[in-house]
Amino acid sequence: MTFFMPDIIRRKRNGDRLKADEIQELIRRYAEGDIPDYQLAALLMAVFFRGLDGDELDAWTDAMLHSGEVLDLSDIPGIKVDKHSTGGVGDKISLCLAPAVASLGVPIPMISGRGLGHTGGTLDKLESIPGFQIDLSMGKAKKLLADLGIFLIGQTADLAPADKKLYSLRDVTGTVESIPLIASSIMSKKIAEGMDGLVLDVKVGEGAFMTDLDQARELAHTMINIGSGAGKTVTALLTNMDRPIGLTVGNALEMAEAIAVMQGNGPSDTVELTKALGAEMLILGGKAKHTDEGEKAIEQALKNGRALAHFAKVIEAQGGDPGVCEDPTRLPTAREQRPIVADRDGFVRKIHPRIVAQAALEVGAGRRTKEDKIDPATGVKLHAKVGDSVRRGQPVATLHHHDTGAETAAAMLFTAFEISDSMPVQAPLIIEKL
Amino acid sequence: MTFFMPDIIRRKRNGDRLKADEIQELIRRYAEGDIPDYQLAALLMAVFFRGLDGDELDAWTDAMLHSGEVLDLSDIPGIKVDKHSTGGVGDKISLCLAPAVASLGVPIPMISGRGLGHTGGTLDKLESIPGFQIDLSMGKAKKLLADLGIFLIGQTADLAPADKKLYSLRDVTGTVESIPLIASSIMSKKIAEGMDGLVLDVKVGEGAFMTDLDQARELAHTMINIGSGAGKTVTALLTNMDRPIGLTVGNALEMAEAIAVMQGNGPSDTVELTKALGAEMLILGGKAKHTDEGEKAIEQALKNGRALAHFAKVIEAQGGDPGVCEDPTRLPTAREQRPIVADRDGFVRKIHPRIVAQAALEVGAGRRTKEDKIDPATGVKLHAKVGDSVRRGQPVATLHHHDTGAETAAAMLFTAFEISDSMPVQAPLIIEKL
Repeated sequence: MTFFMPDIIRRKRNGDRLKADEIQELIRRYAEGDIPDYQLAALLMAVFFRGLDGDELDAWTDAMLHSGEVLDLSDIPGIKVDKHSTGGVGDKISLCLAPAVASLGVPIPMISGRGLGHTGGTLDKLESIPGFQIDLSMGKAKKLLADLGIFLIGQTADLAPADKKLYSLRDVTGTVESIPLIASSIMSKKIAEGMDGLVLDVKVGEGAFMTDLDQARELAHTMINIGSGAGKTVTALLTNMDRPIGLTVGNALEMAEAIAVMQGNGPSDTVELTKALGAEMLILGGKAKHTDEGEKAIEQALKNGRALAHFAKVIEAQGGDPGVCEDPTRLPTAREQRPIVADRDGFVRKIHPRIVAQAALEVGAGRRTKEDKIDPATGVKLHAKVGDSVRRGQPVATLHHHDTGAETAAAMLFTAFEISDSMPVQAPLIIEKL
Repeated sequence: MTFFMPDIIRRKRNGDRLKADEIQELIRRYAEGDIPDYQLAALLMAVFFRGLDGDELDAWTDAMLHSGEVLDLSDIPGIKVDKHSTGGVGDKISLCLAPAVASLGVPIPMISGRGLGHTGGTLDKLESIPGFQIDLSMGKAKKLLADLGIFLIGQTADLAPADKKLYSLRDVTGTVESIPLIASSIMSKKIAEGMDGLVLDVKVGEGAFMTDLDQARELAHTMINIGSGAGKTVTALLTNMDRPIGLTVGNALEMAEAIAVMQGNGPSDTVELTKALGAEMLILGGKAKHTDEGEKAIEQALKNGRALAHFAKVIEAQGGDPGVCEDPTRLPTAREQRPIVADRDGFVRKIHPRIVAQAALEVGAGRRTKEDKIDPATGVKLHAKVGDSVRRGQPVATLHHHDTGAETAAAMLFTAFEISDSMPVQAPLIIEKL
């Protein structure tokens, strides 16, 4: 049969299954500029309504994956493991997790993204370290992986370029929020980077892309299935994103918190997530037999300075100032700080993560559009967590800011806190493992 | 609220109702080239799945209508009535219907389209008359309407240009088959042409766009509602398109059949449709009180030569050779004719209209793409209708062709006929009136 795009669109629209070779051809042709955006846009919307079944998804992901370079890390010994989070507020886990797991002998080829909208990005947080380079050549990155067992870099233009083009189109055509499209986008990039195993942190709740547990579960299952279709082992944790993670939102602030975690301190939820995700990575990497053993190993690596020492080496190798590990005040700091105080006595019943993220965005910690520049020093520091008792007039947060946005951000940040008379019941941080 | 297209797309995708001013703005901006095709394509697919409610449809139609010139025919006396068919195989009804109704005093401002795919177009059939001009200026067309009570022209670039642009996009993005989009496309053009009343021939069955009766009924109701929202009276007949209409498919062949009808002859089904649709037009135009009276008036105009005389005047006024009315052999004729014979004795149980149309297309009677040129002389002449008894070896059809496509077309045409031992039960031609 000849390839005729309007027919392909109509068939998907009508709920028919597309054949693997049709999907391969359409992704390839689109990447090559041979199919116009308007036809892909219509197809993406049809996919939004009709979904993609397992075979279609495997073909779709594979086509995006093979639209560019696929890294071959087979000459580097060990089971290469990566971690991906679907995005949250204050999610700095990768920063302490990756060095901890690498320090225990699991090679970590980590390719991260930038923040957009209400979620932050690992790359931006890494770049808050003076001098840190995230644009390494693949040769250099592979050498780091061989020497240090880790690299922490950004996506190159060569990796899954079809996904990059498709994502830009989804962004402007209302077709981002589709489970098969989200899953194939993430998995094509992750598979292209050459990993053998992947741990997914699928976030659910007010501060996540997925606010519905069933949908988050479906997304996780979809990614697990794509992974196994490509011969990769994928584990997923569904975790609660109904409150900010840890006590900081903003790039250098979050980096400092990650360093604190690797100094054996840090907020308990940040530590809990690091241990839980780290344990799964160690299991996939063959360095732990079960969760308990894995969590203990991560805890030790955080407490005994092994993770931090490893991180210092990565920083140095990627051109940054490793001195931040001993002295986090070498990270950029904001000139202005403004406290937000409780207006009543009571218990913190809720801290709305999206409002906190919005406040951080107002003072320049995030991007509204891809072109925005971020200010690494700005953001929000929380002094109270959900469940804490507070007194009227007590500071519950501090806004770190420069010249713009402080008024609006402070007003927002105040509304992020709900204080009530009774102690709230907290949902568990880690909901389930898939 | 500011206008942000991705939000509009997402809201329609999620089943929200768009506001009238949003729809107006998006159609206006799209027509002006201010919104890219890919965003409209995504929105159109969302509309395919979510539909448009009555208010949305009125706004959508109105925006398309006002994207260009809206004809004002109010200075021409009488209730202006037009007819529109959703398209079929062998549908030459407009050719005999319009002159018949006009000859009875109802002004007919008829703007028709060209054929595409399996359906023919009135314009192509008119152009089979040597010299006939379908591209008249609006001034000239209005003068014809004032003098003769009729014009038969093609859509000008000034009429509903947003619809033209949108239709081209739908054609290549698998978003043609949407009832609200079909209905608003038809109605915006018809309202723009200045008519007061409209009779719709909504075709159902194998040879129509709508193969499902409920869908056809929904389309008819949707158009009636849009019409009444715009202050126009719309009547719809649902008619059977499970067999070719009349005995000809192809431009000059159909024109000859229409002339035969106006000579008081012609196949019974062509005559029946002409009378039924004509009666409704006369009622809308205030020239008949009920169907019976209207049908009798049309029958007389066909039998007494009044319709044909009127047609001759229109042909002459539009630059064509009126001699074809007396001598249809002045129409283009194909050099080659090839009979298709029955391969057994029996009753014609079925003549598949799409296969007949496809055969005609093969020999150049239709267009596969908008750029194709048609051959006015070619096509198919049927010698047997559904229900007729035939004998093995008896010609059931003749292919009129030139140099290309005859082999394939003949093979196809043979398969269009199903012959069985028992007399088939025929569904009525006119299914219902709405």
